Amino acid sequence: MAMLIDGVPDEQVSALDRGLAYGDGVYRTLQLVGGRPRLWRWQWQRLAEDCARLALPLPDERLVLAELAQAAVGLERAVAKIVLTRGVGRRGYAMPADAVPTRIVSASPWTGYPAELAEQGVTVRRCELRLGLQPRLAGIKHLNRLENVLARSEWSDPTIHEGLLLDSEGYLVEGTMSNLFLLRGGELATPLLDRSGVAGALRAWVLDNAPALGLAVREARLTLADLDAAEAVFLCNSLIGIWPVVRLGERTWPIPHALRALAAQLAAAA
Amino acid sequence: MAMLIDGVPDEQVSALDRGLAYGDGVYRTLQLVGGRPRLWRWQWQRLAEDCARLALPLPDERLVLAELAQAAVGLERAVAKIVLTRGVGRRGYAMPADAVPTRIVSASPWTGYPAELAEQGVTVRRCELRLGLQPRLAGIKHLNRLENVLARSEWSDPTIHEGLLLDSEGYLVEGTMSNLFLLRGGELATPLLDRSGVAGALRAWVLDNAPALGLAVREARLTLADLDAAEAVFLCNSLIGIWPVVRLGERTWPIPHALRALAAQLAAAA
Repeated sequence: MAMLIDGVPDEQVSALDRGLAYGDGVYRTLQLVGGRPRLWRWQWQRLAEDCARLALPLPDERLVLAELAQAAVGLERAVAKIVLTRGVGRRGYAMPADAVPTRIVSASPWTGYPAELAEQGVTVRRCELRLGLQPRLAGIKHLNRLENVLARSEWSDPTIHEGLLLDSEGYLVEGTMSNLFLLRGGELATPLLDRSGVAGALRAWVLDNAPALGLAVREARLTLADLDAAEAVFLCNSLIGIWPVVRLGERTWPIPHALRALAAQLAAAA
Repeated sequence: MAMLIDGVPDEQVSALDRGLAYGDGVYRTLQLVGGRPRLWRWQWQRLAEDCARLALPLPDERLVLAELAQAAVGLERAVAKIVLTRGVGRRGYAMPADAVPTRIVSASPWTGYPAELAEQGVTVRRCELRLGLQPRLAGIKHLNRLENVLARSEWSDPTIHEGLLLDSEGYLVEGTMSNLFLLRGGELATPLLDRSGVAGALRAWVLDNAPALGLAVREARLTLADLDAAEAVFLCNSLIGIWPVVRLGERTWPIPHALRALAAQLAAAA
């Protein structure tokens, strides 16, 4: 792994960084091909929105792109991560007026996930943990991820590839590391993320690109009944791409042509 | 400030630490006098409970005490912080089976808060942010503190000393950095922290010690109506001690003898 901290090759941060003390920061995980991030427009837009919502300064876009390229030197395909924190702080929750943000850009050789998961589909479970509702943090890919950690700790069976999360009111939200889409009647529906969940860059890409394939899109409150009624289901994130869901307990779903077409569109995207 | 990371003088942690990546850890802030922590029994019990709830290994108690003393060498009175994280992790939320926890122990010269706040009482405001409900994390002093950061950012007026937080259902929970008690009819009531909030060590001390002063104690769902009906109100944490609340908007409260007696008891505690 190669890592730049505020542009300097390093692998350590101050133990007084508010990213550690309070999870006071945001991040993105992305794919690099030839040192260039895939789906950058969607990644950057999500990062900018998340920074704005937490009043975190957004770094210069060209600087971040240059650091991604530098971290990925020698790697034809890489997994990259961008972490932005509010920097080193004095004691106390108040945002320091003079805080200098910390910017961590890293890249590792691509390991990815087995290709057959995208081709043949995945098996999921329903997590016991229910996501709390917090509109002020909903959708943001921030560093407060204990709910995801606890949810992911519910299973270790390697034949279960992801866990579905409901919120405290029983609505579907997402997977522990992915966003969720349901296909029915030529329409793709995905949970509204205005009260919980993480709005991933690939989710945004799907919402923007599915209509060109003849699929209407909709963000809505979705229930387990909607899941059961779906003709097809998929999960997505920037590393896994699109994973058709083929099994949850006894319920199975097919992988219709529309999902193959969407995945092909994604594979062809820059 | 003096800091020990896993027992070694240092001030940096790996940028891959799960404490930074996910807020996957817990902490305590405490007072040291002559290198010894005040109210240690309550601090340690809370730390042990928090670790158990997050499946974090608890370090050896004597080791932590020795590190606190070492960090505070030369400081008659100090503010100390203990941070325990799940350590450096591979990518992904799953708890690594082979994770080596990170232990950060630090001490700084005591700066404290102006003594007149404890003597004359404080003015508080009501925060706009409502705490989300998450029973799996409620009460734990974990590193996911963005709600507190956002709540504390709501005001900068230095004559406002603390903000009161309600949960999404409108129940009283705590201050942004303190626990809340209401006195009425010889009884101290404090919000139940089974759905949100941080259960501080001083809160636990008050619950254990108030009865000896003739004050019954009760954990309950409390409302703004209960606050309005209270004969006295106070906030507490391990650094501020006990802060009588004397004003919220137009509402004022006195500082009855019972609160002075509790503060005197605290001052005399080891």
